[in-house]
Amino acid sequence: MTKKDAKISEFEIINKFLRPLSLGESGAFQFTDDAAILPQIGNNEQYVVTKDIIAINVHALDTDPPSTLGRKALRVNLSDLAAMGAEPVAFFMGLIINPRIDEVFLCNFASGLMIDVKKYNIPLLGGDIICDNSSFSISITAVGKTTDNLVLRSNGAQKGELLWVSGSIGDSALGLLSSKKEITYELTKGNIAHLVNRYQIPQPRIALGQELLNIASACTDLSDGLLADIKKLCKNSGLGCTINGSQLPLSNPAKLLLSSDVKFLETIVTGGDDYELAFSSRKENTEKLQELAKKLRVPISCIGEFTSGPEIRFYNDNGKEMNFLTDGYEHN
Amino acid sequence: MTKKDAKISEFEIINKFLRPLSLGESGAFQFTDDAAILPQIGNNEQYVVTKDIIAINVHALDTDPPSTLGRKALRVNLSDLAAMGAEPVAFFMGLIINPRIDEVFLCNFASGLMIDVKKYNIPLLGGDIICDNSSFSISITAVGKTTDNLVLRSNGAQKGELLWVSGSIGDSALGLLSSKKEITYELTKGNIAHLVNRYQIPQPRIALGQELLNIASACTDLSDGLLADIKKLCKNSGLGCTINGSQLPLSNPAKLLLSSDVKFLETIVTGGDDYELAFSSRKENTEKLQELAKKLRVPISCIGEFTSGPEIRFYNDNGKEMNFLTDGYEHN
Repeated sequence: MTKKDAKISEFEIINKFLRPLSLGESGAFQFTDDAAILPQIGNNEQYVVTKDIIAINVHALDTDPPSTLGRKALRVNLSDLAAMGAEPVAFFMGLIINPRIDEVFLCNFASGLMIDVKKYNIPLLGGDIICDNSSFSISITAVGKTTDNLVLRSNGAQKGELLWVSGSIGDSALGLLSSKKEITYELTKGNIAHLVNRYQIPQPRIALGQELLNIASACTDLSDGLLADIKKLCKNSGLGCTINGSQLPLSNPAKLLLSSDVKFLETIVTGGDDYELAFSSRKENTEKLQELAKKLRVPISCIGEFTSGPEIRFYNDNGKEMNFLTDGYEHN
Repeated sequence: MTKKDAKISEFEIINKFLRPLSLGESGAFQFTDDAAILPQIGNNEQYVVTKDIIAINVHALDTDPPSTLGRKALRVNLSDLAAMGAEPVAFFMGLIINPRIDEVFLCNFASGLMIDVKKYNIPLLGGDIICDNSSFSISITAVGKTTDNLVLRSNGAQKGELLWVSGSIGDSALGLLSSKKEITYELTKGNIAHLVNRYQIPQPRIALGQELLNIASACTDLSDGLLADIKKLCKNSGLGCTINGSQLPLSNPAKLLLSSDVKFLETIVTGGDDYELAFSSRKENTEKLQELAKKLRVPISCIGEFTSGPEIRFYNDNGKEMNFLTDGYEHN
């Protein structure tokens, strides 16, 4: 690890805050060396790797508690592993800090991250720290594993299969609006906390992803927005789909906001940062999927069906087709 | 890959500039999916992973050609793999771009990187792009492999062993000074180009690192500065050392500058960014090392000896002990 020109020395940051995150994993060499060795895996196992950067002002607000920032960065990457059906193994972390980042910030950042390192039993094996005048950014590379090269791809959906999503959609985008004081409707403190929590600390669907290896034909996680990510699934599979808005899984605060102003529908389906899984599965798997959801205690909802496409048609509660100005962050 | 709010769409950046860097490696899934599968390795092989960030204004100048930026970022990581004796396999790349980064910049960036992707036969397997108002930054995670868990560590040096370095020291730091117009001494254009090139495009000593697995007892790469990194070797091995300044391997332009002003000695031994290897080996290995250097066409120089320490003593050409205000970027 190298760091240049910061107030707190690299030695202090590593010793006080980062080394404990390795959970004593031998291949981390206690961060004294130039690289780390990944733990041995079985002959029929393979490593699955993803890399996502989280930056303040892009994926997090500078008013978010520092204790949530590392957790979000890690969970966003775990969500990518979940979408491939991989089991988390270890991670690497690059931090871009700036002169305004002090020891209290770093302490809270690391304490929060430790909660998830333990929760997901995923040791930090190495990384890098640099200091400049940029926003605080966290670049995580997460390593997972799978067996027999089996992963969930985004290109395997078939016409006539059902489109499912896990959890609830839109909470995170509404939580962001709420954090930015852009919601005038008066929600209870509990409802606001629910939405903001979903923005700050997403729930990667790791167990679900692994179980879906045998039952889903395509899968992705919802990071850019429901419509944008479903568009990706459709495009990669060479299909289209119909989405029934009436079946969208919404939390109570999301339902309240939507009933107060229909404009929130666009936020819900395009806002992104859901980190739920969207996947396709044959109709005959419906019961099996419902049992699986019950076993894992992760709600899943069938929200549509894949068509020969390429159109993605979204119907509202009254069966009327809706068009949105944007699909999400990305417009391919 | 996800990207938010940039002028050029993620789709375009990936399609035009990044996808070719995967060299068609199947586990990259053409960057359509949420993660990648690392290529299979043998039963007795292990993955070695390192992660270093390069940021403009920290490790590169905004006047550096964009074609060199990705190469430096990759090579800095390859240098870490070399220091562990690992063989490069693949890499992942996160880019933090900003609204001032245009298509021409990205095209030059990717063309430069492609040179090294082919040179080192190291495919890009995935990554992430975000856009904010920060400096252009490149976060690379490089994956290498080794056999039987054998890696070069930084803690194995023994008292009485010799201290060696590869290549020449100080060129990069002098190249940085030259780029910043902070050198008044008149060097020829060729000499300036040599120094600047060493700053912009370091030479990772990959083949040397792998050969050293059987002959060096400790190794690190020189990134923070000769003295800082040797201090790390000494500290991790519980030793000290003596360094003979007269034996420092210097290029001709470095020699010229040093003869013009002795102040450049501090730049040379503390400036960093050398990306040469420093390693320890038993005295009886000297001939073997010299043959190895000849075979690989990589010059190596014995510059000192490990002592019971903990002091690191640097002697100049006249045998006088020198002290420097700083060891390098980091002061543990």
